[in-house]
Amino acid sequence: MTLRKNFGSDNVTPMAPQILAALAAASHGPVHSYGDDEYTRQLGEQLNRLFEHDVLAYPVTTGTAANALALACVTPPFGAVLCHETAHIVTDECGAPEFYTAGAKLLGIPGAGGKITASDVTERVAFAASMGVHHVVPAAVSLTQATEWGTVYGLDELRTITTAAHAAGLPVHMDGARFANAVVHLNASPADCTWRSGIDILSFGATKNGAMAAEVVVFFDTRLAREFESRRKRAGHLWSKMRYLSAQLVAYLEGDLWLRHARHANALALTLSRELARIPGARLAAPTQANEVFISLPLPVIEGLERDGFEFYRWPAPPGHDGVVIRLVTSFDLKDEDVQGLLAAARLHAEGP
Amino acid sequence: MTLRKNFGSDNVTPMAPQILAALAAASHGPVHSYGDDEYTRQLGEQLNRLFEHDVLAYPVTTGTAANALALACVTPPFGAVLCHETAHIVTDECGAPEFYTAGAKLLGIPGAGGKITASDVTERVAFAASMGVHHVVPAAVSLTQATEWGTVYGLDELRTITTAAHAAGLPVHMDGARFANAVVHLNASPADCTWRSGIDILSFGATKNGAMAAEVVVFFDTRLAREFESRRKRAGHLWSKMRYLSAQLVAYLEGDLWLRHARHANALALTLSRELARIPGARLAAPTQANEVFISLPLPVIEGLERDGFEFYRWPAPPGHDGVVIRLVTSFDLKDEDVQGLLAAARLHAEGP
Amino acid sequence: MTLRKNFGSDNVTPMAPQILAALAAASHGPVHSYGDDEYTRQLGEQLNRLFEHDVLAYPVTTGTAANALALACVTPPFGAVLCHETAHIVTDECGAPEFYTAGAKLLGIPGAGGKITASDVTERVAFAASMGVHHVVPAAVSLTQATEWGTVYGLDELRTITTAAHAAGLPVHMDGARFANAVVHLNASPADCTWRSGIDILSFGATKNGAMAAEVVVFFDTRLAREFESRRKRAGHLWSKMRYLSAQLVAYLEGDLWLRHARHANALALTLSRELARIPGARLAAPTQANEVFISLPLPVIEGLERDGFEFYRWPAPPGHDGVVIRLVTSFDLKDEDVQGLLAAARLHAEGP
Amino acid sequence: MTLRKNFGSDNVTPMAPQILAALAAASHGPVHSYGDDEYTRQLGEQLNRLFEHDVLAYPVTTGTAANALALACVTPPFGAVLCHETAHIVTDECGAPEFYTAGAKLLGIPGAGGKITASDVTERVAFAASMGVHHVVPAAVSLTQATEWGTVYGLDELRTITTAAHAAGLPVHMDGARFANAVVHLNASPADCTWRSGIDILSFGATKNGAMAAEVVVFFDTRLAREFESRRKRAGHLWSKMRYLSAQLVAYLEGDLWLRHARHANALALTLSRELARIPGARLAAPTQANEVFISLPLPVIEGLERDGFEFYRWPAPPGHDGVVIRLVTSFDLKDEDVQGLLAAARLHAEGP
Repeated sequence: MTLRKNFGSDNVTPMAPQILAALAAASHGPVHSYGDDEYTRQLGEQLNRLFEHDVLAYPVTTGTAANALALACVTPPFGAVLCHETAHIVTDECGAPEFYTAGAKLLGIPGAGGKITASDVTERVAFAASMGVHHVVPAAVSLTQATEWGTVYGLDELRTITTAAHAAGLPVHMDGARFANAVVHLNASPADCTWRSGIDILSFGATKNGAMAAEVVVFFDTRLAREFESRRKRAGHLWSKMRYLSAQLVAYLEGDLWLRHARHANALALTLSRELARIPGARLAAPTQANEVFISLPLPVIEGLERDGFEFYRWPAPPGHDGVVIRLVTSFDLKDEDVQGLLAAARLHAEGP
Repeated sequence: MTLRKNFGSDNVTPMAPQILAALAAASHGPVHSYGDDEYTRQLGEQLNRLFEHDVLAYPVTTGTAANALALACVTPPFGAVLCHETAHIVTDECGAPEFYTAGAKLLGIPGAGGKITASDVTERVAFAASMGVHHVVPAAVSLTQATEWGTVYGLDELRTITTAAHAAGLPVHMDGARFANAVVHLNASPADCTWRSGIDILSFGATKNGAMAAEVVVFFDTRLAREFESRRKRAGHLWSKMRYLSAQLVAYLEGDLWLRHARHANALALTLSRELARIPGARLAAPTQANEVFISLPLPVIEGLERDGFEFYRWPAPPGHDGVVIRLVTSFDLKDEDVQGLLAAARLHAEGP
Repeated sequence: MTLRKNFGSDNVTPMAPQILAALAAASHGPVHSYGDDEYTRQLGEQLNRLFEHDVLAYPVTTGTAANALALACVTPPFGAVLCHETAHIVTDECGAPEFYTAGAKLLGIPGAGGKITASDVTERVAFAASMGVHHVVPAAVSLTQATEWGTVYGLDELRTITTAAHAAGLPVHMDGARFANAVVHLNASPADCTWRSGIDILSFGATKNGAMAAEVVVFFDTRLAREFESRRKRAGHLWSKMRYLSAQLVAYLEGDLWLRHARHANALALTLSRELARIPGARLAAPTQANEVFISLPLPVIEGLERDGFEFYRWPAPPGHDGVVIRLVTSFDLKDEDVQGLLAAARLHAEGP
Repeated sequence: MTLRKNFGSDNVTPMAPQILAALAAASHGPVHSYGDDEYTRQLGEQLNRLFEHDVLAYPVTTGTAANALALACVTPPFGAVLCHETAHIVTDECGAPEFYTAGAKLLGIPGAGGKITASDVTERVAFAASMGVHHVVPAAVSLTQATEWGTVYGLDELRTITTAAHAAGLPVHMDGARFANAVVHLNASPADCTWRSGIDILSFGATKNGAMAAEVVVFFDTRLAREFESRRKRAGHLWSKMRYLSAQLVAYLEGDLWLRHARHANALALTLSRELARIPGARLAAPTQANEVFISLPLPVIEGLERDGFEFYRWPAPPGHDGVVIRLVTSFDLKDEDVQGLLAAARLHAEGP
């Protein structure tokens, strides 16, 4: 049997068998298009129950679209989104938020572990106000949960930030590309992790965690959703055969598939993190709280793993961290023996020739 | 057995079994993301062979995205796209081309049967030039093939228009949401139907004709593709698990599935058209050359069919055509007996009570 | 003394001596920038008095900027502006409204004399609603007053249209590049011509009628002005030395200079119109109600005037009007003898060789 | 006689008497609009001579418009502009470059004295390339000259940066809102300060240095100007009575008015800088090379000056600089006795009560 050696990303995974089965089950006869179908309605009901809240929810194909559409609903062209400087929306979406908002600014804020704080929000808002019409107008806060450094905002951290944001009149968006992994880590209800902590809009990711290509934008403050449908259509993100987008998400939530997947991936990441940290010279670059491990290892170990065919990225070290940092990502599709395979190889290289 | 009564659109269809099978076959283990996969490579080779030309081809999820991205690659914000006034890009995409081009104009041109002519192009270009900097700059021509009126541009018509466009320095885009139906009608090679007739970019549709959610933008003039990948990413239309988008298209082309589907749908439409036209008082609003029938029928027949549960749209009559026009759409998923069912009902209502 | 032969446009005029004097008077010592100055404050007060209403008013440099900024404040990117198909915003601004709104659509409506009607508005709104998310969302109505055909909407016409627009939830913008000429024709108060007739936003033109480069966007419904200042700054239309923009407008309103100028120009246009209409074969293409004359003349007359060095434009004839139409524009800077000069020449050419 | 106490900005100044005279001289009879006039032609010739180069030059009203239009000509929506993190385009234009480019990113780079370096450019370009389609594409470099910290890039510094930029295929834009002050400091020809040092496009400022509202975008690489006129029109920045915009600039260049003004302002700033630096506890935050002084002073001195009615801004201290920094700006309109007035007051407050 072949061990899997791809720790590069959780988006190299296939869709889960349950998702494929849902696509097959939806493949029969004519069904009204553009979301006027039972799958989309069922998804709406599932989300209402899951979040213990009447939400407005819109499936889209990619996380980039989910984030950009969500932010465009609350950020005018002359607005600004406050977020961490390493946020995916800042660094990895080729300017998608700027495109969808017609040119708003992302104000990237530095901060340890990929997190921003309430005072970051308050200070940026005050500074902008002091600059008057010359400065873009803060319009929203976007938090990544789990963060780009594999950490997770605690419920208290969320609450403090969202309170500061709301005090300034800013809605709070959560980029939940890895929301499942965060919920598992927090061991709290989806409602506690979101609207009860002040989140107004969630980009609820499924693709990295088992879907084929599906995310859903969930509005807890439903007044903010007013423009969503027109913007989605205009962006070419309204599927005609919407049943196939919604069916993925229905299956993703069914029987807590999403949480089971995330539990598995988080556990593998913790094993990786704990065991690699024992290698002499190793040092975690951030605590491992979701399905990503950021760790510096002795260069011979890294080069050895690369030669062995393990796939992962070298990563820019955070401020104050010496050494070569790598990122290892686990997923629902990875097995314990895959992780053990990498650990064994790493130990071997650590012993030296 | 239940007859299918939905003649409203070809996008109420499920995906074809062969497409579903392709998704299942692609669902194994880790595969590199964002298009660095064998399915996407295979698709590229298939398209080169199919079109007898080295093309650059980019899969996307929806026809709206395909059209808007294609046009954005050739139309600056201060530019104009010349097209028929009933073109889908004008009427049905909630301003997607304007969004993707950052505010270019669509100059809708009237014309019988959903078609524009070479002199339309020449005249608009001359007028724009006479207006100088005050007028948007003609930047591209977009043709819908098959047209929004179920007609098909002949190869000679295409050639005349594209010659006029190229003489004015304008590339020509073809919105081929129903390209398969047009190719079947023309009974010519895909190469003849496109680049040999002067087409520079094709939005090659698959969704209406059997795919789940897949279209591919094909650049015959590959220099025009320079911006495509950045624009696609930025729009959130780059799937991470691209294998699933490409695999649909690979299966769509395999064994000429696309042409077999279109032949079937076109034949059903011809039957509908021929037989309905025999009803006293019936009058075709446009010749039936693809998979759409536009016909005015006596109001009691239309109302009778509606009461029977047949689904279709009443349609704005073209200039000079009296009576209530309806649109009937056929598809690969419709059966001959479905068509016979509608015809029988129509004849019954025509006889009166 | 040289007669003036330029009837091409009212924007070939210099600024009025009173406006120049105002610039000179404002040229002393340091003054706070960006509108925090006494000229801008004075302008605000003048406008409140003139319109008998508490308005919010923002000077800008050009009519294009005034229109585009005003429309952008009320039209989302997925929105549509209903207006006449010959409106300046449609034909002559190189896509400025599309730029400022980030890609909204202008839905150009045909209609005699450059006018749209209440039922045009009602029908377009109903059609858009019937198309759902596929259609852009009607967001505003824009009326040109005086129109592009030198006609003037009556107060009753305005009231009917604005009532229909408001019933559909749409604010009404007036492009008043030649507002002065319309007010003179209507012989009504500026308040009657605007908010009392349901106008919500006015682009109040001054440049064509005596200013150097100054227009002011006047919000009667001040809630709609919320985004204006950020949008103006972002567009580079906030002058640092704002005193010089406001001072032009202050002088323009002072002592009814604007109305005196318009009275003069309208009177000259009426003379031109009445006298030219007496030439055998002449036919007005639209009634002359402002400072523009649209008339078809025998070709030898037109060619003779062109040879004589008179400057004017040949104009596309309106539907149903035979013959070669020309446009003659009068202004505050033109004299009665200039008009008599053209008339004499025209009569001479009409007599033939 | 009243001393001038406004050191807040150089944009509180009136226009110079010579500029006003030029406006008056241009105020006669009809002149063709939109730039087809002798003033605009004369300006073109003056600029060709001044820069010893055939340039394409376009007057606009504000520096914000000049910068945003220039950058939009070379930066696609998915592109990035590399510039200093304190650049005016980043901090003070309410997102104008994002608006005009339809959502490009400004990548703000830190650096002492408001300057970036060649290696900053090279590193950012390499990093972007390593990120592929996920990262915006570096498209241009923008340098502010004089910088936002009152310093001036030396000719050798310019040459190194532009060489690095051109090696990466990026054109270089210079924001010359205070270009005159930089040229005076460098004591070099305008050609040396621009294209001979690798600058491709210059926003040549006049407003802060004596004009009413005039800047001119100068393209040394004229191929880059292809889109300018359409973009300017579309933005509402094409004056109909262009003579009045061009005439300002003609007078600005005539008899080296611009250099005489800048020499005066720079000299006053040097006096301020040298004398204030003698106050115990004072420390310059950046060398004074143009018409701006950045200096930290004892708080009682600052508060004393503020109480005296002197106007200036407190400024964020640069990294590593303790104390409260203020910015003092001089101009052509300020007199030596005004400067002496401030110095006397400062010395008085430094002595204490």
